[in-house]
Amino acid sequence: MSNFVILYSMKLFTYSSRWLTSLFFVVAFQAQGQPVQPYTYPPSEVVKIHSRLLNEERKVYVHCPKVDSAYANSRFPVLYVLDGDNHFELFAQYVDYLSRPDVLAMPKMIVIGIPNTKRTRDLTPTNSILNYEGKPDSSSYRGSGGNEKFLQFMATELMPVIEKKYPTAPYKILAGHSFGGLASLHCLLTHPDLFDAYVAVSPSLWWDKEYVLRMTDEKLKSASTLHKTLFLSDGNEGGADSFFHKHLLKLEATLAGKKLKKLDYRYKHYPTETHMTEPVVAYFDALRFIFKDWEKQH
Amino acid sequence: MSNFVILYSMKLFTYSSRWLTSLFFVVAFQAQGQPVQPYTYPPSEVVKIHSRLLNEERKVYVHCPKVDSAYANSRFPVLYVLDGDNHFELFAQYVDYLSRPDVLAMPKMIVIGIPNTKRTRDLTPTNSILNYEGKPDSSSYRGSGGNEKFLQFMATELMPVIEKKYPTAPYKILAGHSFGGLASLHCLLTHPDLFDAYVAVSPSLWWDKEYVLRMTDEKLKSASTLHKTLFLSDGNEGGADSFFHKHLLKLEATLAGKKLKKLDYRYKHYPTETHMTEPVVAYFDALRFIFKDWEKQH
Repeated sequence: MSNFVILYSMKLFTYSSRWLTSLFFVVAFQAQGQPVQPYTYPPSEVVKIHSRLLNEERKVYVHCPKVDSAYANSRFPVLYVLDGDNHFELFAQYVDYLSRPDVLAMPKMIVIGIPNTKRTRDLTPTNSILNYEGKPDSSSYRGSGGNEKFLQFMATELMPVIEKKYPTAPYKILAGHSFGGLASLHCLLTHPDLFDAYVAVSPSLWWDKEYVLRMTDEKLKSASTLHKTLFLSDGNEGGADSFFHKHLLKLEATLAGKKLKKLDYRYKHYPTETHMTEPVVAYFDALRFIFKDWEKQH
Repeated sequence: MSNFVILYSMKLFTYSSRWLTSLFFVVAFQAQGQPVQPYTYPPSEVVKIHSRLLNEERKVYVHCPKVDSAYANSRFPVLYVLDGDNHFELFAQYVDYLSRPDVLAMPKMIVIGIPNTKRTRDLTPTNSILNYEGKPDSSSYRGSGGNEKFLQFMATELMPVIEKKYPTAPYKILAGHSFGGLASLHCLLTHPDLFDAYVAVSPSLWWDKEYVLRMTDEKLKSASTLHKTLFLSDGNEGGADSFFHKHLLKLEATLAGKKLKKLDYRYKHYPTETHMTEPVVAYFDALRFIFKDWEKQH
């Protein structure tokens, strides 16, 4: 190899190296130098409440519509959702999107998410240690049966705070899933005046030998004037033999048999959804159902 | 009235007044004294990119799974959603919830929302000023036809930045609605290798005398090996006579006629949803469809 060739090769290497180095810096700068800012979500708040009834500190998540000059004096319906850590953000998202001026499927609304402290205590209507197969399971269900006290907390401690702090309209919705769905139905049967619409997604009707199912039959005997909205659903929770599905069919048959002219209810079965994916689509369908007449008027 | 009575009445008034005043302060203190903190959403970022191709500054929204020690070396599929200002938060919400350990319907995923600068320019495949009735509307559609350049921006400017900055896996999804759905289909037909799955919710197939519908028929003649996933849908957009519905039925018939054994597609019609409410449920169903096999394996 002549010196010329060596020299030329080295020069080429030097050029290539420099070019590669420059290229590296350009690429590195481009990739790492992109300006990055945090994304701003519509703000929500955490409100802390000392509950004398429950003898504990509770927090709730609050998503309130952004009030601009056009809405300065507006007041908004309120949706309370149980299992707040699972479904608060989803509802906030649905409400914000579906109430946009270019969508207009429902009104702007305040969403309250209630996270759990003692879920089984707060969301079950009776003290029972029986699991869904009717077998005792005291480790899971000890301390159950506090739903009445929890509803009192909502009515006398939580709602007054929300109604004082935020521009609430009288219309209220209670939404729950599983034990939360059971609690929502229990509230409809025992304190129907607390809310205007009730959502029960795969309610755990198996609880305590179908306690709430039996209560439905008894309570609704004299409730032909129950003027409420109710959305019920179940998913694919064990196939055709699912006790969720059987219980929901039984509940629907009970409601249909009562001829409750003023109870506007819908039952929807989601055969392709699991117990945990179902709330995503069922909560959307519940909002669409509750506000079907509102939508027509706007 | 005797003095006694007057005195007693005054005393009663004084007591009542004191009691009311005390009550007022208690209520006021309870309501206004609740500790309030901002609610913390899972963080997302805004990344800014200078596009040489589009000759403008672009921003994208990025939602990346929170990486804890269990996921320290994980890489995540990426979903790109058009009309980012409409649907980015919804997808971020769906992905976070559906990938939770107690739901496990899909893997954790990175969501990229692309907000618009010039929507018609970027999302339409041809330069046309015809509206959905075939009538000229230059004020709305002037400057249309830039989708090829926009897809190049995504492939050569946006994706390299995302893949450099975030722990991406190779699997990629493109999702769009209306003009965004048209762009998603156009990408499948012209750059099928860019993504693994395509979602087109009520794509505007009316564009330019059904340009993309005609292209589907031509392009897929020799595409029996197209190994992709495709979710298509329409809503109630003008009843039975809706051109959206007719076009989607035509598209489905075209796909069915081609016997594309490796194209895993589903078409879903939402008769109770409007053009604007449909994406909420269709995007959920699209994720459920795309990850149906993943779910079975987990």
